[in-house]
Amino acid sequence: MRAAVLHPVGRVLLEERPRPEPGPREVLVQVSSVGTCGSDVHYYEHGRIGDFVVTSPLVLGHEPSGTVVATGPGAGRHHPGQRVSLEPGVPDFTCPECRAGRYNLCPRMRFFGTPPIDGAFCEYVVVHEEFAYPVPDSVSDDAAALIEPLSVGVWACRKARVGPGTRVLVTGAGPIGLLCLQSALAFGATDVLVTDVNPARLAMARGLGASETLDVRESGLRDAGFEPDVLLECSGHPAAIGEAVRAVGRAGRVVLIGMGGDEIPLPLSHVQTRELEVTGTFRYANTWPQAIALAASGRVELDALVTGHYGLAEVEKALTAGARDPELVKAVVRPQE
Amino acid sequence: MRAAVLHPVGRVLLEERPRPEPGPREVLVQVSSVGTCGSDVHYYEHGRIGDFVVTSPLVLGHEPSGTVVATGPGAGRHHPGQRVSLEPGVPDFTCPECRAGRYNLCPRMRFFGTPPIDGAFCEYVVVHEEFAYPVPDSVSDDAAALIEPLSVGVWACRKARVGPGTRVLVTGAGPIGLLCLQSALAFGATDVLVTDVNPARLAMARGLGASETLDVRESGLRDAGFEPDVLLECSGHPAAIGEAVRAVGRAGRVVLIGMGGDEIPLPLSHVQTRELEVTGTFRYANTWPQAIALAASGRVELDALVTGHYGLAEVEKALTAGARDPELVKAVVRPQE
Amino acid sequence: MRAAVLHPVGRVLLEERPRPEPGPREVLVQVSSVGTCGSDVHYYEHGRIGDFVVTSPLVLGHEPSGTVVATGPGAGRHHPGQRVSLEPGVPDFTCPECRAGRYNLCPRMRFFGTPPIDGAFCEYVVVHEEFAYPVPDSVSDDAAALIEPLSVGVWACRKARVGPGTRVLVTGAGPIGLLCLQSALAFGATDVLVTDVNPARLAMARGLGASETLDVRESGLRDAGFEPDVLLECSGHPAAIGEAVRAVGRAGRVVLIGMGGDEIPLPLSHVQTRELEVTGTFRYANTWPQAIALAASGRVELDALVTGHYGLAEVEKALTAGARDPELVKAVVRPQE
Amino acid sequence: MRAAVLHPVGRVLLEERPRPEPGPREVLVQVSSVGTCGSDVHYYEHGRIGDFVVTSPLVLGHEPSGTVVATGPGAGRHHPGQRVSLEPGVPDFTCPECRAGRYNLCPRMRFFGTPPIDGAFCEYVVVHEEFAYPVPDSVSDDAAALIEPLSVGVWACRKARVGPGTRVLVTGAGPIGLLCLQSALAFGATDVLVTDVNPARLAMARGLGASETLDVRESGLRDAGFEPDVLLECSGHPAAIGEAVRAVGRAGRVVLIGMGGDEIPLPLSHVQTRELEVTGTFRYANTWPQAIALAASGRVELDALVTGHYGLAEVEKALTAGARDPELVKAVVRPQE
Repeated sequence: MRAAVLHPVGRVLLEERPRPEPGPREVLVQVSSVGTCGSDVHYYEHGRIGDFVVTSPLVLGHEPSGTVVATGPGAGRHHPGQRVSLEPGVPDFTCPECRAGRYNLCPRMRFFGTPPIDGAFCEYVVVHEEFAYPVPDSVSDDAAALIEPLSVGVWACRKARVGPGTRVLVTGAGPIGLLCLQSALAFGATDVLVTDVNPARLAMARGLGASETLDVRESGLRDAGFEPDVLLECSGHPAAIGEAVRAVGRAGRVVLIGMGGDEIPLPLSHVQTRELEVTGTFRYANTWPQAIALAASGRVELDALVTGHYGLAEVEKALTAGARDPELVKAVVRPQE
Repeated sequence: MRAAVLHPVGRVLLEERPRPEPGPREVLVQVSSVGTCGSDVHYYEHGRIGDFVVTSPLVLGHEPSGTVVATGPGAGRHHPGQRVSLEPGVPDFTCPECRAGRYNLCPRMRFFGTPPIDGAFCEYVVVHEEFAYPVPDSVSDDAAALIEPLSVGVWACRKARVGPGTRVLVTGAGPIGLLCLQSALAFGATDVLVTDVNPARLAMARGLGASETLDVRESGLRDAGFEPDVLLECSGHPAAIGEAVRAVGRAGRVVLIGMGGDEIPLPLSHVQTRELEVTGTFRYANTWPQAIALAASGRVELDALVTGHYGLAEVEKALTAGARDPELVKAVVRPQE
Repeated sequence: MRAAVLHPVGRVLLEERPRPEPGPREVLVQVSSVGTCGSDVHYYEHGRIGDFVVTSPLVLGHEPSGTVVATGPGAGRHHPGQRVSLEPGVPDFTCPECRAGRYNLCPRMRFFGTPPIDGAFCEYVVVHEEFAYPVPDSVSDDAAALIEPLSVGVWACRKARVGPGTRVLVTGAGPIGLLCLQSALAFGATDVLVTDVNPARLAMARGLGASETLDVRESGLRDAGFEPDVLLECSGHPAAIGEAVRAVGRAGRVVLIGMGGDEIPLPLSHVQTRELEVTGTFRYANTWPQAIALAASGRVELDALVTGHYGLAEVEKALTAGARDPELVKAVVRPQE
Repeated sequence: MRAAVLHPVGRVLLEERPRPEPGPREVLVQVSSVGTCGSDVHYYEHGRIGDFVVTSPLVLGHEPSGTVVATGPGAGRHHPGQRVSLEPGVPDFTCPECRAGRYNLCPRMRFFGTPPIDGAFCEYVVVHEEFAYPVPDSVSDDAAALIEPLSVGVWACRKARVGPGTRVLVTGAGPIGLLCLQSALAFGATDVLVTDVNPARLAMARGLGASETLDVRESGLRDAGFEPDVLLECSGHPAAIGEAVRAVGRAGRVVLIGMGGDEIPLPLSHVQTRELEVTGTFRYANTWPQAIALAASGRVELDALVTGHYGLAEVEKALTAGARDPELVKAVVRPQE
């Protein structure tokens, strides 16, 4: 099969690789669509994210959808031909974190496109059958791929306990911010303010249901007179985080989703006198059924985020698309084209 | 002012009464719309609900909206002319239940239309200013009245932890069932089955967004192949409750909203082997802002439930309307007409 | 090896069986102590519990401790010689219930001594290495076996959210009731009333820290003037359950632990007007580390519950001990003696 | 009556003031013991804490116990002679925060010894009857006063969800740290590490049940090999906070109790990859019954913290005692002596 392989640092080559064989309880999936993510771009540009370093050739891509074409021993959940969305990280299932239902914190997680585990910018992948989720016809291949970033938004909204009436501030209107926005609306929020410095993205936020948007180059959050119950922080900018946290109302929840520096300044007395709850997210757990239900019912709009398609030979172009045109939101790789 | 007064048992007379004066932190409200409720009908027909007995003349009605026309000493939240939805039960605020945020369980609650507290089938009422909630123009007078039964649905969905992806079974498609349906949808549920024995009500449920309906005279719940995560029980029928509870899946939540007999049979081993959580609701707490946000945003449709308007002189007719025509859903009294 | 085998219905024979071989990630454990449980007695007397029927010879016993003597492929957590307490039910780890952290609800659970899975009334057993928990020297072999029933109490207290200041009612002072009592104290409760009809067991409850006991043959619960926040129901008697539920205060929690008939009467209006939360327990999940910490620190006293030891040849005697002498609490089988 | 009055900045004068009269639902309490707190010392030394500035003469002291000597109109909970512990902050009861059970976040809170509300370094105070909690004889006057700082520990343990088996790190062994330690033990923790730079305080921590202590001048937390589930941060030192947060294990909880600078550095990637929950405490809500139960049962030891008694004329000496002798823990003022 063909695979787009990242060679450290900074070159992606199209190569022939053996088609993987499904092991026990695994399925072989012909890949349809794979979203590109900021972390793919980061590995491409920097060769590492924190402690994860690309030391040998690696296939990136962790937002795949596809079709089951074969099943391994003991795998009985799918028939060949089943369209599926793949959850890209398979834990060890048996450690204390897994048994407690927090498998995203499993120290032995094997995650697509994270060294040394190959990802999905290729024609075929194998995955545990329980992590290949059937999707109905109403969910397109691209949408099935974007269940992964939608899961980030769903997970954040769960952590933040978003519900009807919750006032939500989303800082950053990139793909994750826009999916946090849509997730918050799907959880019942009716009052969501989105901030960014990019007018095109703010316009997209309004189109997707934001009740208000703010270009923070033009006016400060403080002047907006908006006291959210929940902050979904998707910018990763330390200064923006500080200002946004200070806006949050009593007993509010702050979820730090955007990755920034190693440390950020936390306004201690504000957190104390308002008893804010501050947490961060690391991927997600048990979100696929919920996210698929939202996509299938039309409560969230995933296809609208896709601003470009690329073949396997164009992965490097897909990864650099955002830098060339900041109005782009989501590049999708389609390995069969 | 004029008031429709229930004389025990079973007669409602239009009488002149002195207009109430707002006390400290109270507001005087000119009543616009008042929904009629099954409990009003029950007091009218039986003169009691459980330990609450109508021993002297009583004004019923606990679902009022109106306009603030005067304010008492220390009341500063409203200007005269403000349209408001009234929360009809004012607790003592200081007991342990109140201080724990469960003011609906306050043993000294004073609740409109519950002996010996007069209700809102009259021209003017007074209420604590914090229990008169401003509504925007997008919420009609009738809708502002129906924030009260909507609160029952919102409260049930909170107790049941309804969210995106939750499969919900609503048993009973009367006004409360239809509002539980709408609340569940607003909390993000995409898969809601409603049961009843009345085809007209089931049709209304479908129109309001139920993904499926079932006439339980025609086929049993067991045959429906629906395993809900949450049961919102609005029928109050002991037999129906048992069957519905047995349908609920692992770690499911059961909220008993419908009032039935003193005792119901609980399938113990089913509750144990599936670790179901069973609870009941008693009114609501802290629901008005959330319910108003849902109504104002169009997420729930309240006006569609109103199937008849009545003047103050027609309260008896309003209370008996349901018995005459089972297709009726919600009768609203408009005291100024 | 020798094993005590239940032949349906009602005979236990000592037989030679092949020593099991540890499979992948399994350990071979030489059994030290095995508590006997009411469910063992029930299988012995009736040949079934609900849908679980003993149709072929079965080894009972699901409360084992022992010593690791060999490890299977890929098992690396233990060295031979490690003393361990065994969690007797191993789930499939990958189903939705497992992934959500509720592995006790796994539909493919394999549980010791539950048809058709053999238990621990024998010399050697194998178990997944993650379900063999090391115990320190301060925890005896018997205590390490009794971590299993202690887990029932710990699980119930978690479900009931017992903490400092919680008033707790424990109905039934058998082994599970006494461990619920001790668990509640360990969770911080200072005010625990235990009821039973057996003065010896009530005396034991007082010795273990109950602040009050009540012989319900002599006076009713209603007269006790005790309004608990939490009911840990360990009797399984439908009539007792109804009376106990009616005693629970506002926003109280009821955990149904004792197994009784298929149905019990639930006081609906009491559950509603007080908004009680009623649930049941099915085994436990993620309790071993917590339960071992409690035993090791002396916060709970397990050895004191053991009122008799039996060899493998005496399993039938162990299972009938309680019927002969109601003052007995816990019979322990020691397969090596 | 006599009162010790702080004149800005830095002088405390004994003055005659009129004895207060209990208003509606208030009780008049003759003060027995009043603990001194770091915030009292801070007002004495700096004349302000954050936005709260001492601009006119103020009576400090917010940890009082006493005896009810008279009752105001409508106050019926106490008989004169009842010994009570006082909760020193009375909210407005009716705002949204109060109605949600978070009355500690009430923006109209009136709190003893916080400008402009006078405190309890005087002979008599009045307080809402619901905030004067009866104490049994087993709780001394000093202990009844120290229910206030104990409440800080109880509140922190609730926020952190401490229970049996929870590994707890307490940073700072001053009065609050020692009470957090004792609270954690009372909530069931068996493994509590306490850090400080003061050997005498660490010795006291060991005497009160710490399983381990660490003098952080001698060795770093990192070398201790202790990965807590919960951090109760009582030092307020920004550097110490950062190191302590980095020690916390997956899904751990961090409660920031100690007051430090306006901002602290938060290790963002650690919070994200471990999904830590970070929050702060602002006083407490609904803790008195629980804290009194713990003191009355002997689960926590309050009298042992008292290292000095002072009369009303010695308040200034009490407030400066800690600076003179760092081995002192808690100075108590006894206004009647």
